[in-house]
Amino acid sequence: MKNFISIKDIEHPSELLSLAQKVKQNQFGFKQFGENKTLGLLFFNPSLRTRLSMQKAAMSLGMNVMVMNINSDGWQIELEDGTVMNQGSQEHIKEMARVVSQYCDFVGIRTFPALKSQEDDYNELILSKFLKYATVPVISLESATLHPLQSLADWLTIEEHKPKAKPKVVLTWAPHPKILPQAVANSFLEWMKFAEVDLSVTHPKGYELSEQFTKGVSIIHNQDEALENADFVYAKNWSCFQNYGTRMEGFDDWQITEEKMKLTNNGKFMHCLPIRRNVVASDSVLDSENSLIIQQANNRAFSAQAVLLKLLQNEI
Amino acid sequence: MKNFISIKDIEHPSELLSLAQKVKQNQFGFKQFGENKTLGLLFFNPSLRTRLSMQKAAMSLGMNVMVMNINSDGWQIELEDGTVMNQGSQEHIKEMARVVSQYCDFVGIRTFPALKSQEDDYNELILSKFLKYATVPVISLESATLHPLQSLADWLTIEEHKPKAKPKVVLTWAPHPKILPQAVANSFLEWMKFAEVDLSVTHPKGYELSEQFTKGVSIIHNQDEALENADFVYAKNWSCFQNYGTRMEGFDDWQITEEKMKLTNNGKFMHCLPIRRNVVASDSVLDSENSLIIQQANNRAFSAQAVLLKLLQNEI
Amino acid sequence: MKNFISIKDIEHPSELLSLAQKVKQNQFGFKQFGENKTLGLLFFNPSLRTRLSMQKAAMSLGMNVMVMNINSDGWQIELEDGTVMNQGSQEHIKEMARVVSQYCDFVGIRTFPALKSQEDDYNELILSKFLKYATVPVISLESATLHPLQSLADWLTIEEHKPKAKPKVVLTWAPHPKILPQAVANSFLEWMKFAEVDLSVTHPKGYELSEQFTKGVSIIHNQDEALENADFVYAKNWSCFQNYGTRMEGFDDWQITEEKMKLTNNGKFMHCLPIRRNVVASDSVLDSENSLIIQQANNRAFSAQAVLLKLLQNEI
Repeated sequence: MKNFISIKDIEHPSELLSLAQKVKQNQFGFKQFGENKTLGLLFFNPSLRTRLSMQKAAMSLGMNVMVMNINSDGWQIELEDGTVMNQGSQEHIKEMARVVSQYCDFVGIRTFPALKSQEDDYNELILSKFLKYATVPVISLESATLHPLQSLADWLTIEEHKPKAKPKVVLTWAPHPKILPQAVANSFLEWMKFAEVDLSVTHPKGYELSEQFTKGVSIIHNQDEALENADFVYAKNWSCFQNYGTRMEGFDDWQITEEKMKLTNNGKFMHCLPIRRNVVASDSVLDSENSLIIQQANNRAFSAQAVLLKLLQNEI
Repeated sequence: MKNFISIKDIEHPSELLSLAQKVKQNQFGFKQFGENKTLGLLFFNPSLRTRLSMQKAAMSLGMNVMVMNINSDGWQIELEDGTVMNQGSQEHIKEMARVVSQYCDFVGIRTFPALKSQEDDYNELILSKFLKYATVPVISLESATLHPLQSLADWLTIEEHKPKAKPKVVLTWAPHPKILPQAVANSFLEWMKFAEVDLSVTHPKGYELSEQFTKGVSIIHNQDEALENADFVYAKNWSCFQNYGTRMEGFDDWQITEEKMKLTNNGKFMHCLPIRRNVVASDSVLDSENSLIIQQANNRAFSAQAVLLKLLQNEI
Repeated sequence: MKNFISIKDIEHPSELLSLAQKVKQNQFGFKQFGENKTLGLLFFNPSLRTRLSMQKAAMSLGMNVMVMNINSDGWQIELEDGTVMNQGSQEHIKEMARVVSQYCDFVGIRTFPALKSQEDDYNELILSKFLKYATVPVISLESATLHPLQSLADWLTIEEHKPKAKPKVVLTWAPHPKILPQAVANSFLEWMKFAEVDLSVTHPKGYELSEQFTKGVSIIHNQDEALENADFVYAKNWSCFQNYGTRMEGFDDWQITEEKMKLTNNGKFMHCLPIRRNVVASDSVLDSENSLIIQQANNRAFSAQAVLLKLLQNEI
């Protein structure tokens, strides 16, 4: 594993899952690996779980951590090559990535999509530049199109709570007042293909995700039908991929409610957080015993720790 | 001690004072207690002393620390239950508190009052919600109505500088151009009841504090009379409690000056900082040998360390 | 060495250089010195390299680090003595400096010039006040007029790459769309006087630096002539010192290009970063093998570590 940007960086995803399970059993048992190693965390965007779980994971491994909010703490970053930098931007990502690499053994970076240009976002405009110039392993703390640390935590959570060997997992689009990235949904589908699950996705027509993620996954446009006998319901909003970055009015009835959960096989409810209560899902669902949102967030620390440990072990 | 929110959380306040004195003598002598423990510090409001003294205290105990400015680093927090979250707020405090609890062994939180509604503030709108959902011990880094870490440091300072077994301690209202919380004053009165002191409070009529804090404390409306023979003068501005969150014009002559200090028994001057010079107190008072403001701030690190150590020892 | 503010604080600059070379060879070999020591870093202004390299350096020495963005995390700071603080400012630097000193063994502070008043800036308005009241060693993380951590890193870089015993080093003014401080240029000249180099400075007429820094340095107004046979070309923009804080239109042709580098003795290109590409220097220069900008930034970590180690050793 050279970087941790997408599942494609991992030769054996299930081994990484096992590692996460192992560190969860023995959180402080691997501190010898992190000694004298430094993790830099660069945030272009807000973060609570990722910010804290990565720090926690690194410290549990005995690593040093440096956190930086790029927009407020540093300089305005230029992304384009060849620009005459006589306007607002003060530092080129080329220098930024190479410089930060020298102070860190690993660098995590969080960048959201602008949701203006499908091409820019799906080419991972910021992350790809950063990757190009960084000289140490790079960890995605959520990028424009993927959120692999979340997906690994989700997988770990499903493994811990599955009622049968091959549970039925449904990813359902849910309403939201803002336009949101597709990253969590994309990534979840990408990772679930390596899990032993019966996977489907449901969303209103027009909210199709990129085929690179849905290929081989059954797509159902009737939410009720999709939820039938589900063991896990993963709710998440995303904006349109085709009519890129837009939001269609209506579909408020896609909110996950107690009634909808009754269609499932005593299904567990999942969401990556933050969640808008009574919009994405009702209080009653979120506060029910079948809600796994807090456990998912807890597992973020162990997915992060497994990724760091894997990168540290690579180095040996 | 389950949390550290108010003096009511502490069975034997004087034992906590002794612990603070003990850690001050041996700052790095308790590192075995903090190993592999993580303190999360969440700031909804600005902070210098609390921010740095808590970090210092935790690191002196060998703990890991994570600091987060909630407003700028994370998501906009919803406090109300049952809300349809389709407006600005992005994450409910219910999730925030439960999630952060999972990454930390202890969580410190700083929340100021809005000074709009007495009921909201004195019900500790934010802190009480956070407490309700947090699953680890919570430490107040100053709340809407109390600042116990400050009070413990103040007590420690008084013990170190008292000229007699039972010194006369006067809390005096002082002028200020803005409306300020009552937290430091409330908390000081609450803690001083456990100290061996002759306690009184002086303020202009209309600046009465809540009776729950002044009960049993002599209230004097003539500042000069109150200061007579004082061994310690604790100056602090607060806004009106009755005509809640307002400020009355005038009373600039309540500023603590050299002349007023002459009424005291060679009294020591105290303030929690930050202090507006030549408004709350004159330069000559603040820069005199009798000023304890820097010593108080120094003791913040030891009051914080004692609280953390107590919580760590609880765990054993 | 009591503080690290300017080269005047250092008795034997070449010994500090040697120490930097030594820590670069053995980054984690001095951790016993930093145990239980705390470095506080206070930023009044943005920073990437200084922020991260100082943290990295301190952690490599086993120190604890606390970082604070003064403007956003704390209170608005008053600098003037004797002010009646009934306006915006909330805390006097007198208290701030003394309080922070108590929580830290060393304090780093970053303050930029306002570029309004030559007198204020060259008297180091903020830093000098901070120094006056601080009770622990203070490290400049770049001040209004000097940037010694940068200069030490620059010197280290020159030593590592010099093609002859006494290389020719040219500091050249370069264009920039904004008005910038003279700190890096001033400091570079100050330090280079201790290096075994043939030093000159070139700039358009009107961009003369303060004589206290250029005394004894040959000043050339023809850039081409200055660059001839240079072994190192250090490019940096600065605003006018005489017509203080202003910027003259024109001089875009002072940009360092490949053509200009051809005048040199296969010269190495240097800059402190952040750099505006194709304004200060062309992409082709920055991306050439002769560019040392990344190496300079790398050496920031070792210059910082040497300074901290020197201060730690003082204490023993």
